[in-house]
Amino acid sequence: MTHRIGVVGASGYGGAELVRLASGLPTLDVAIVAAHSRAGEPVASVFPNLAGTRVFDEIDVDALGELDVVVLATPHGPALDLAPKLVEGGTPVVDLSAAFRLSADGFAQWYGEEHPHPQLTPATYGLPELHRRTIPDATLVANPGCYPTATLLALHPLLALVEPGSIVVNAASGTSGAGRTPTDTLHFAHVHGSASAYGAPTHRHTGEIEEHLGHGEQTSGPVQFTPHLLPTARGLLATCTADLRDGVGHDDVQSALHDAYDHEAFVQVLPSGTWPTTKAVHGSNGCQLSAVVDERTRRVVVSSAIDNLGKGAAGQALQNVNLLLGLPETTGLTAVGTYP
Amino acid sequence: MTHRIGVVGASGYGGAELVRLASGLPTLDVAIVAAHSRAGEPVASVFPNLAGTRVFDEIDVDALGELDVVVLATPHGPALDLAPKLVEGGTPVVDLSAAFRLSADGFAQWYGEEHPHPQLTPATYGLPELHRRTIPDATLVANPGCYPTATLLALHPLLALVEPGSIVVNAASGTSGAGRTPTDTLHFAHVHGSASAYGAPTHRHTGEIEEHLGHGEQTSGPVQFTPHLLPTARGLLATCTADLRDGVGHDDVQSALHDAYDHEAFVQVLPSGTWPTTKAVHGSNGCQLSAVVDERTRRVVVSSAIDNLGKGAAGQALQNVNLLLGLPETTGLTAVGTYP
Amino acid sequence: MTHRIGVVGASGYGGAELVRLASGLPTLDVAIVAAHSRAGEPVASVFPNLAGTRVFDEIDVDALGELDVVVLATPHGPALDLAPKLVEGGTPVVDLSAAFRLSADGFAQWYGEEHPHPQLTPATYGLPELHRRTIPDATLVANPGCYPTATLLALHPLLALVEPGSIVVNAASGTSGAGRTPTDTLHFAHVHGSASAYGAPTHRHTGEIEEHLGHGEQTSGPVQFTPHLLPTARGLLATCTADLRDGVGHDDVQSALHDAYDHEAFVQVLPSGTWPTTKAVHGSNGCQLSAVVDERTRRVVVSSAIDNLGKGAAGQALQNVNLLLGLPETTGLTAVGTYP
Amino acid sequence: MTHRIGVVGASGYGGAELVRLASGLPTLDVAIVAAHSRAGEPVASVFPNLAGTRVFDEIDVDALGELDVVVLATPHGPALDLAPKLVEGGTPVVDLSAAFRLSADGFAQWYGEEHPHPQLTPATYGLPELHRRTIPDATLVANPGCYPTATLLALHPLLALVEPGSIVVNAASGTSGAGRTPTDTLHFAHVHGSASAYGAPTHRHTGEIEEHLGHGEQTSGPVQFTPHLLPTARGLLATCTADLRDGVGHDDVQSALHDAYDHEAFVQVLPSGTWPTTKAVHGSNGCQLSAVVDERTRRVVVSSAIDNLGKGAAGQALQNVNLLLGLPETTGLTAVGTYP
Repeated sequence: MTHRIGVVGASGYGGAELVRLASGLPTLDVAIVAAHSRAGEPVASVFPNLAGTRVFDEIDVDALGELDVVVLATPHGPALDLAPKLVEGGTPVVDLSAAFRLSADGFAQWYGEEHPHPQLTPATYGLPELHRRTIPDATLVANPGCYPTATLLALHPLLALVEPGSIVVNAASGTSGAGRTPTDTLHFAHVHGSASAYGAPTHRHTGEIEEHLGHGEQTSGPVQFTPHLLPTARGLLATCTADLRDGVGHDDVQSALHDAYDHEAFVQVLPSGTWPTTKAVHGSNGCQLSAVVDERTRRVVVSSAIDNLGKGAAGQALQNVNLLLGLPETTGLTAVGTYP
Repeated sequence: MTHRIGVVGASGYGGAELVRLASGLPTLDVAIVAAHSRAGEPVASVFPNLAGTRVFDEIDVDALGELDVVVLATPHGPALDLAPKLVEGGTPVVDLSAAFRLSADGFAQWYGEEHPHPQLTPATYGLPELHRRTIPDATLVANPGCYPTATLLALHPLLALVEPGSIVVNAASGTSGAGRTPTDTLHFAHVHGSASAYGAPTHRHTGEIEEHLGHGEQTSGPVQFTPHLLPTARGLLATCTADLRDGVGHDDVQSALHDAYDHEAFVQVLPSGTWPTTKAVHGSNGCQLSAVVDERTRRVVVSSAIDNLGKGAAGQALQNVNLLLGLPETTGLTAVGTYP
Repeated sequence: MTHRIGVVGASGYGGAELVRLASGLPTLDVAIVAAHSRAGEPVASVFPNLAGTRVFDEIDVDALGELDVVVLATPHGPALDLAPKLVEGGTPVVDLSAAFRLSADGFAQWYGEEHPHPQLTPATYGLPELHRRTIPDATLVANPGCYPTATLLALHPLLALVEPGSIVVNAASGTSGAGRTPTDTLHFAHVHGSASAYGAPTHRHTGEIEEHLGHGEQTSGPVQFTPHLLPTARGLLATCTADLRDGVGHDDVQSALHDAYDHEAFVQVLPSGTWPTTKAVHGSNGCQLSAVVDERTRRVVVSSAIDNLGKGAAGQALQNVNLLLGLPETTGLTAVGTYP
Repeated sequence: MTHRIGVVGASGYGGAELVRLASGLPTLDVAIVAAHSRAGEPVASVFPNLAGTRVFDEIDVDALGELDVVVLATPHGPALDLAPKLVEGGTPVVDLSAAFRLSADGFAQWYGEEHPHPQLTPATYGLPELHRRTIPDATLVANPGCYPTATLLALHPLLALVEPGSIVVNAASGTSGAGRTPTDTLHFAHVHGSASAYGAPTHRHTGEIEEHLGHGEQTSGPVQFTPHLLPTARGLLATCTADLRDGVGHDDVQSALHDAYDHEAFVQVLPSGTWPTTKAVHGSNGCQLSAVVDERTRRVVVSSAIDNLGKGAAGQALQNVNLLLGLPETTGLTAVGTYP
């Protein structure tokens, strides 16, 4: 049986990556690839890898409403408008934007505007390794941000082992995370061979990390999050440190990670001392993690690598689509990273 | 039904790419991943994308002989030794090395040594777009070199339209084409941000291009081939020029390319003026081609882009394996390039 | 004694590179750094390497007219307007644009518009290694294009040795050659790790190569020129081939190159078989050349590497400024390439 | 007057960069370029930017002893042997290795061996912005490590404002910092487009940071230092965070940095919110810094960019040589970064 899905915002990197992943899958028919500004233009004119004669579709809510799932890969503005209409009509939505990831209060704080649909937010947070049970029945799934995905996978299992308020995350992403719109700071000659921090200390993913890292009685406390731009197209690395609670040691940390992920298809815990590389997961839905305990400073350092367009966006979205459709979660996601 | 294959030389980039492509395929079981120098070591210690606990196997000809197909991804020295043994024992072989690509005379000329098995060479040349009919019944398939693949796909359909002896090919490859052994000239800091020619005018792929470009009464004449190193890991671009015969024009060139490839799954002819990019086929088995006719110089310029590890090596090898096993030729090869 | 110069179009890469080279030189005072669209903005806001509080100046012809030399680093449109005004007023001009490089006929053919000042074009062609004697007395120097610089340095000494009409040039440039304006095709994520041809067969530098390669009774004939984009910021490599005339061999080629360049400060002839790398001249005014003769095809292959912003633009412009001012030609240009 | 200096270990990136910087300087004659393993080989065979016929010299202590200053760019092993001999003979030494940077106790702790010359270590620490007064009279100058240079410049002025023990430094370096010896992890195809952490939590630069960050009554406490490999050849970025002491705010932080560096030639404090890029200082001796105060977390974040071969190695060494020779400190170091 083939399920019919739609991608809105398919002229962006996230949307196009989903189209790429779904290409040739017998289980999924991407019936609509909508892009407001590019409607009518050939998909191949924007994405040279997506050969063929297909053109971008208009955004037509009625047509989208007849599909089995709609994936929104637009900025959060259009998503705030489209998602409620589709959900009301009974069509499940996976939203790659930040529109429904935070509580209404968090949204107001980090995005500087009142949330227009406070009753819909936060939607079901689509990080299957943490929320697998609730996703299949959701009507609106908020696909996590790229930095929060890497950070939460690294720190969520360790939260009970570390001191609230002590978390420092330094992360670095390839430029595709910043989108397809040409700008001075994403111009090839500017970025090639260069690295820099940006956006700290008020990057909006900070709020998302804090809101979704806490669970049960554990809270993260304020997180110091500094993102950086890497001179590469894809790939995201998060290096997370936190003060260990008294008595916590190497074995506790390793056990917590292995307990959380040894049964997971997409998350791999590397031996302590073997560090994840972004290239190992390039083009895949994988996440590689590794942790060391520094007894001298009594801190843990966890490094986490994902493809920002894979597990950090479209791969995870497909994982959520699979869950919503009752398909095996790994359908279409078994590709291994294209190292080297 | 699952077919059992083996990869010898799996610690090199070509062999490992085949293991990557075959991962998770229900039709293929890569039963042996042999690597002489790394036997016993974890595959993941060399290829961080190939997670898991598997270790490289010893090269055991008897064990290999029980498989349905063996793919040799060694240098041509070991292949000259192994292929005859396997073929004699009735096991079909796809050889990624240059051991059996040339006539015995050509081998002596370009490789500087007498061919030890002149009766076996040239083996069936495994460029399915040109030799699809003969591959399924072959016992020994010589998988084409990366530069010849890009060049032959670009020029083979045009050979009757151009003057023999007028062909000039400038090609550039990512460094993975040069292998996994660390050297001064493949050191990251040396290559990053740099480009250079190398190996001209005696690069061995010149002889392979000349020998396999001619067909019927058409011969290529001597080809001027200059390879270059690109500051990227994967991707190969060949820019081919040749003098047009009298009366040949734009339409003849475009028709020849479209006639040859419009029905092909892996070769895409772009509109004249739209140029192939290596990134469009990164990680895939695709080839993108585009040609322009220069009426001022009466030459044709054809540009051809492949992934040197995909269509230029392991992807094409899997295509040949599929043909040998009677599987659909595209099995395991439908992945779209990982642009951007 | 300090000479006062001005740079117009200083918000582009070529102009800014000249400002960089002139920084701290006791002999030159860059009194005006004009940029129409950025006037009033801090230079450092566009060029993070040019620290300080200086702002871009308005383009004021009267003020420019009081300087010792003005360097135009604008597109050819503004240069067609500015250069005649400055020259008429007696101020020597070095023009980095293509406005005055070609004969009026050539300009009409390759730029598709009638030249508005046919009596001023072609101006003195500012390739000092070929025209050192005429530059000091010039009032208008046309600074060569990046591709023509690399190509002419490679082929000019060999022209008498090769067959007219047989020249094929494949060249590749870092993206800074395409300017500082953000576009889809210069977006970092699009270019990173990718290579492609572009602009063939009608790239305008073709006409410039043909017009300036011929000398005396020698003509180049039509040149087949195919430019490519390299995934790097700086660096330009030209690989040039041509049929050798009867009787010409290895020694003739090497002698011609050594005779031309052994006394030159900026051009280095490498031993045959040692290939130039763009990184060796990164940030410098150098050019590295190397040639091989292919007796099998009776062709010569010459490879030529420059920094497209150095010898291919601002470095060469400073060389011309030095000649115009009667300064030692190497003043401010002795920096060695920043390998690795 | 020309001073005669020698470089030992000139076949490494640090030594060769010093030769590059000194090329053409009228004040310095690099009389000896010694390299044990390459003695007799042309310098240009290893460093294509350093054209010419010069060959590497043998390491001859007597000959070195007749020079005005000797720069050691060897690993710390040979430096432990050579430096005492030269110093005893009265020849001032600038040592780029870690041989004499730490106290004997610190050396034993971080390098795992007893220091053979405890009376000579720590030598004068050659970070001129912190120790300008003592360097001119030194006989043995320990040139700081690349990571410590970036970190100390960022944090030294702020130490009195932050809580001891709260410092977390995440830094990333281009691969040239790891040297010129080809290895699996520095192979181009492995590193291209990839990023990873390494060496934490026991990277030896941790001890150097801790030992030299404290001053007066201020101590750094244990520093959490995690280095990363960047997919670029040159460039080092350090992102440093620390808890602010009570009452310390934005103005205190900015004042401390501006007070420390506004009069410095090589350190530039960018406005808060404008982040340093490694490319802005590529090929130069510059350091760019920028700090933000996060009132939410009560931490400061300081980012610091240098060229690891410039201010992080050879540039700083030349600064120290200038101080030892009584030359203006900026001699030979005024080159602006080669952006883009």
